[in-house]
Amino acid sequence: MSFNTFGRLFRVTTWGESHGPALGATVDGCPPGLPLTEADIQPWLDRRRPGQNRHTTQRREADAVEILSGTHEGRTTGTPIQLAIRNTDQRSKDYGDIATRFRPGHADIAYHLKYGLRDPRGGGRSSARETAARVAAGGVARVALAQLCPALKIVGYMLRMGPHEASRARFDMEEIARNPFWTPDPVAASEWAVHLDAIRKAGNSVGATIELVARGAPPGLGAPIYGKLDADIAAALMSINAVKGVEIGEGMAAAALSGTENADEIEMGPDGPVFASNHAGGILGGISTGQDIVARFAVKPTSSILTPRATIDETGAPVEIVTRGRHDPCVGIRAVPVGEAMLACVLLDHVMMHRAQVGEGPAGRIG
Amino acid sequence: MSFNTFGRLFRVTTWGESHGPALGATVDGCPPGLPLTEADIQPWLDRRRPGQNRHTTQRREADAVEILSGTHEGRTTGTPIQLAIRNTDQRSKDYGDIATRFRPGHADIAYHLKYGLRDPRGGGRSSARETAARVAAGGVARVALAQLCPALKIVGYMLRMGPHEASRARFDMEEIARNPFWTPDPVAASEWAVHLDAIRKAGNSVGATIELVARGAPPGLGAPIYGKLDADIAAALMSINAVKGVEIGEGMAAAALSGTENADEIEMGPDGPVFASNHAGGILGGISTGQDIVARFAVKPTSSILTPRATIDETGAPVEIVTRGRHDPCVGIRAVPVGEAMLACVLLDHVMMHRAQVGEGPAGRIG
Amino acid sequence: MSFNTFGRLFRVTTWGESHGPALGATVDGCPPGLPLTEADIQPWLDRRRPGQNRHTTQRREADAVEILSGTHEGRTTGTPIQLAIRNTDQRSKDYGDIATRFRPGHADIAYHLKYGLRDPRGGGRSSARETAARVAAGGVARVALAQLCPALKIVGYMLRMGPHEASRARFDMEEIARNPFWTPDPVAASEWAVHLDAIRKAGNSVGATIELVARGAPPGLGAPIYGKLDADIAAALMSINAVKGVEIGEGMAAAALSGTENADEIEMGPDGPVFASNHAGGILGGISTGQDIVARFAVKPTSSILTPRATIDETGAPVEIVTRGRHDPCVGIRAVPVGEAMLACVLLDHVMMHRAQVGEGPAGRIG
Amino acid sequence: MSFNTFGRLFRVTTWGESHGPALGATVDGCPPGLPLTEADIQPWLDRRRPGQNRHTTQRREADAVEILSGTHEGRTTGTPIQLAIRNTDQRSKDYGDIATRFRPGHADIAYHLKYGLRDPRGGGRSSARETAARVAAGGVARVALAQLCPALKIVGYMLRMGPHEASRARFDMEEIARNPFWTPDPVAASEWAVHLDAIRKAGNSVGATIELVARGAPPGLGAPIYGKLDADIAAALMSINAVKGVEIGEGMAAAALSGTENADEIEMGPDGPVFASNHAGGILGGISTGQDIVARFAVKPTSSILTPRATIDETGAPVEIVTRGRHDPCVGIRAVPVGEAMLACVLLDHVMMHRAQVGEGPAGRIG
Repeated sequence: MSFNTFGRLFRVTTWGESHGPALGATVDGCPPGLPLTEADIQPWLDRRRPGQNRHTTQRREADAVEILSGTHEGRTTGTPIQLAIRNTDQRSKDYGDIATRFRPGHADIAYHLKYGLRDPRGGGRSSARETAARVAAGGVARVALAQLCPALKIVGYMLRMGPHEASRARFDMEEIARNPFWTPDPVAASEWAVHLDAIRKAGNSVGATIELVARGAPPGLGAPIYGKLDADIAAALMSINAVKGVEIGEGMAAAALSGTENADEIEMGPDGPVFASNHAGGILGGISTGQDIVARFAVKPTSSILTPRATIDETGAPVEIVTRGRHDPCVGIRAVPVGEAMLACVLLDHVMMHRAQVGEGPAGRIG
Repeated sequence: MSFNTFGRLFRVTTWGESHGPALGATVDGCPPGLPLTEADIQPWLDRRRPGQNRHTTQRREADAVEILSGTHEGRTTGTPIQLAIRNTDQRSKDYGDIATRFRPGHADIAYHLKYGLRDPRGGGRSSARETAARVAAGGVARVALAQLCPALKIVGYMLRMGPHEASRARFDMEEIARNPFWTPDPVAASEWAVHLDAIRKAGNSVGATIELVARGAPPGLGAPIYGKLDADIAAALMSINAVKGVEIGEGMAAAALSGTENADEIEMGPDGPVFASNHAGGILGGISTGQDIVARFAVKPTSSILTPRATIDETGAPVEIVTRGRHDPCVGIRAVPVGEAMLACVLLDHVMMHRAQVGEGPAGRIG
Repeated sequence: MSFNTFGRLFRVTTWGESHGPALGATVDGCPPGLPLTEADIQPWLDRRRPGQNRHTTQRREADAVEILSGTHEGRTTGTPIQLAIRNTDQRSKDYGDIATRFRPGHADIAYHLKYGLRDPRGGGRSSARETAARVAAGGVARVALAQLCPALKIVGYMLRMGPHEASRARFDMEEIARNPFWTPDPVAASEWAVHLDAIRKAGNSVGATIELVARGAPPGLGAPIYGKLDADIAAALMSINAVKGVEIGEGMAAAALSGTENADEIEMGPDGPVFASNHAGGILGGISTGQDIVARFAVKPTSSILTPRATIDETGAPVEIVTRGRHDPCVGIRAVPVGEAMLACVLLDHVMMHRAQVGEGPAGRIG
Repeated sequence: MSFNTFGRLFRVTTWGESHGPALGATVDGCPPGLPLTEADIQPWLDRRRPGQNRHTTQRREADAVEILSGTHEGRTTGTPIQLAIRNTDQRSKDYGDIATRFRPGHADIAYHLKYGLRDPRGGGRSSARETAARVAAGGVARVALAQLCPALKIVGYMLRMGPHEASRARFDMEEIARNPFWTPDPVAASEWAVHLDAIRKAGNSVGATIELVARGAPPGLGAPIYGKLDADIAAALMSINAVKGVEIGEGMAAAALSGTENADEIEMGPDGPVFASNHAGGILGGISTGQDIVARFAVKPTSSILTPRATIDETGAPVEIVTRGRHDPCVGIRAVPVGEAMLACVLLDHVMMHRAQVGEGPAGRIG
């Protein structure tokens, strides 16, 4: 089956191929009465847009979003919001070889085996271009969250590029917007620029780790057992192209800890419980505690590279493939706004689910 | 909202609390005509059952499953299968303190904040005991998979306990059943026994990493974009108690690789494509390729420990908590059969989804 | 596929066969903190219980509900509520013929064709006994509605039995509880008693129409376009065994009206809009208006009758069938509490969906 | 909540308002490899298109469908199919009064109460124009059904207009395409033309009944208990604008029958069971039997009429309303292709669900 819908109450259905006439997102379940125009969404798309510097694909897409339904006089009506983005830069000639040869590490071969056919132009549905629709939907989610959880602030940044990791000791959140890698470590930004230039010149690509933090999320978000907040975040992030791992709080490193090291001790603060540490990443038992929600995900290196690779074609014959065209040498860079958008959608969905079952605000108090 | 149902077509709804009269799973959507009795399910529950050696909780539960519906004369009828497990060992007196004090690292405080009340006996719904229902449901999934994918074999094992990692150089899959840690590395098993004895005596606990491998899965399983096989596996594993990270193939380490290192080159084998490596963990673009599907997850250390921890109670007063009772010092051990069960459920679900959309077998051929 | 779950947020999964060990309902998504014990549910089951008078099946079932999970100290915890009912009166010998011969008008043949096998004892899953689980779930829904919509009152009654229709001119709602047919028309009750005695003695059965009214439902319930309140009510009622038609307000008779006859004129009352009539049955555009919600459904006559009928057996041979055993001559009688239960579940589901998207109460005001 | 998605595996999400820039349907889950271009869909839209004769609204819409995604070189790829229809005839000035005054019988007041605002232009989301998207999606479903169930034939026709009912004695299925009312009774067609002229001149409107027949549907479609084929058909038809009643087979009239009258006796035919009658409408226990599937629905008279009606405005003041503009005097006419489209979508969905659980074809055989 094909399941292009994400979310339980705030539901996003993305559609469209890289080189088709358009792609977009149908956003259903949005609260009514919210101020919403294209201007609320476009800035997020602009952050993800390719071709803004030498470190991302040189494909030039305006990525201009158009709201086709669901608003009236600049306010959401509670009906489905259709967000459409026209594809304008479609140099299909760039993609000759890949129509019949399978790129190692790419979805090509899997789509072929599953469906018996695929849209090879630009990766079709499996193109990173699909994430533009997610970012647009995330823009709507942010507008709703601004009203329902005004204290909430979602921020994403790159932690690692290939062998080079950013240092938390150097973090300055103001830096994120100042470098092309969305990293709070200015030293890492410089190192990565050099590294990525080399990678690009070598016709290679590189992976990345992105961290997301949601500050100010109310406690009580989450739905045991199979709608846990962390399980939904994991699905949301793992659904992004090229993602191979997802972590909450300590993540995989939690396996190495002892119970005394891992458990975050609790004390009473002026507005509720305060935790001595945040190994949990803000989520216990699948439910938010009011601490920062911290998630990370790893993006593998782009599989479309200029270095020749051994593969087969649709007849099974051994061939070599070189993927020309305009590909991101580090697709993780543009995954930062995508991860933020997915987290925004998950959080809004859980705010609405909580409101459905429990009402406004958490039901329990301490003190 | 509460979402206790997992799966799209093969749907498992678990219910029940640690110290209530019973817990279980309602399994809906199972194919009809399959041979199924309690004897097909009980062995999997026995693997997870506590108290089988000194390394797991000494709580004694028979974990005897009873099929209350959905079969007739030993065959599934296609209607919902109710799998019930009576709780027999309920020493509620063991849980005095935790009724009003919040264990650091435990779901207690989150349930309290969300719902305003909780069943404190044995952790209530957030108890690891809930996973017995998952294992029972997984037993049903395995019966269906044996018929629909006879070549499929799912195996799980422990890779790491705290600071000690197993060595792949020493892996012998026959070893898994011979040691209490389900590890294919016999040397690690010996080391972990010593380590865990020390941890237990210190009133502490420890985390673990578990790896799951599905060999013989057909290509074509998976459902872009939000029903990707890896996204569903991620959600399934992250929904297990105490899991903080999920990886597919290279997982988080993919971030450190270059494109030439990461992409698995393809050649033609006698029965279809063969890959030179498996960094992808058997999944490309969210769809299985026919390679081994490889997933890992990290389990944090048990939060219920004998070492005193600083916390607050329901009035907000600072208190100390010591969790007596019979807790697993390494809950990751019993997570092995739970992870296998979740993977079985996800794979069956996707086999059925594929059959719905595309029919029997993958649609595309190579060669 | 098998879909034994009903509802979007307040989700009810029923399970169990007529003559298996037990049947029940897993109720997920219930608001927390509600007072709930078996005593809140049993009275609704008692209304549906067979064998209370000569007009229903003489099968004797205690239909005693047991809450196996989801409550603590008499309050809902927000986790799944397992409602189990043991089957106690299983005279399987009564069902000899029907194991291999198909009853005309019964689900037997359809289950056989679909699944290749079925549980023939007492109709298995397609038995009217399955509706006990619905009534139990409806009991939970009523407890939640009592808190969320205290003004809401749901009542069901029989309007027609075979050729005999009740007269609205004689309606007295106090009468409903006083006769075995749940009808507000005492004259009809007398006529139907005579008619049903004759039907039963003739080894025949008869159909019925049931009307449901929900008074005091808030305006704004409903979810265009495919989650309309009336569409969800239609699905809920049509899912009840033996139901062949569903109407809202004027129902099928709306086809015969003109626009001036049908549209309910509006004026302003002290608490909001007031309508001059209720052809709409309280629902416009799939959304409740605050008027009485009025639905009707038709129940076909029981197909298990003593009169011999021509049919075939599993080999295709022509045979005659006479269904002995203890069947309801008018299954519509016991459908009254079932219809009420389904309406309660649908309304609660929509109250929660509205709260999720819009918040507490309707968003719009008039005047 | 807003639920604009219909279907379980073949999922249709409609979006768009009557007078917005466009409307459409996102069709997810379609089998891959099907031949599909706009030419496969447009003919169904043309049947529903307004302004083709004097009996429907004179609004002139081309209703030209554009496929924006999900196909490649004229074949479905298994990914979401975006069907967009631009709105071209938007005389918003026609709708002055209704922006603040509530039309009796119309969704206006319900949307206002629920959401606090609405798009008043042309009825916004509650316009009959939304059904164009359903018809487009139904066109895709028909292409899939042509491959998966080549023997299946779906036909719809009008049975009643206001007081005038067609006579089955005069039915000639060839007539359906020859008159503007899609009725197989040529005499009724003449009578209705006269009646509707009078209604239109009187500034009034009239209701209608539509019957749908699916011939050649395989046995075994349907999913007990809450995914019964008839329950899904009921929801699908009741979700269409202005529908107030739904019937399967005998429908509401089943209430008046006895068991001997209602049950369809069975004999063995050359290709399987044959039934002596079809009171069941082809569905028993929620599962198709192989007989014709017969459903009916009633459409209320259009609420937008020229005859003045008493109502209130948004301030609660009593006012009169006259709805000018170009409205269908009998919206039931154009509901014929809409009903067919919904039935096609439901049947395809169940064909896919059956294949998922049971495999190709029904599992059981007789004889």
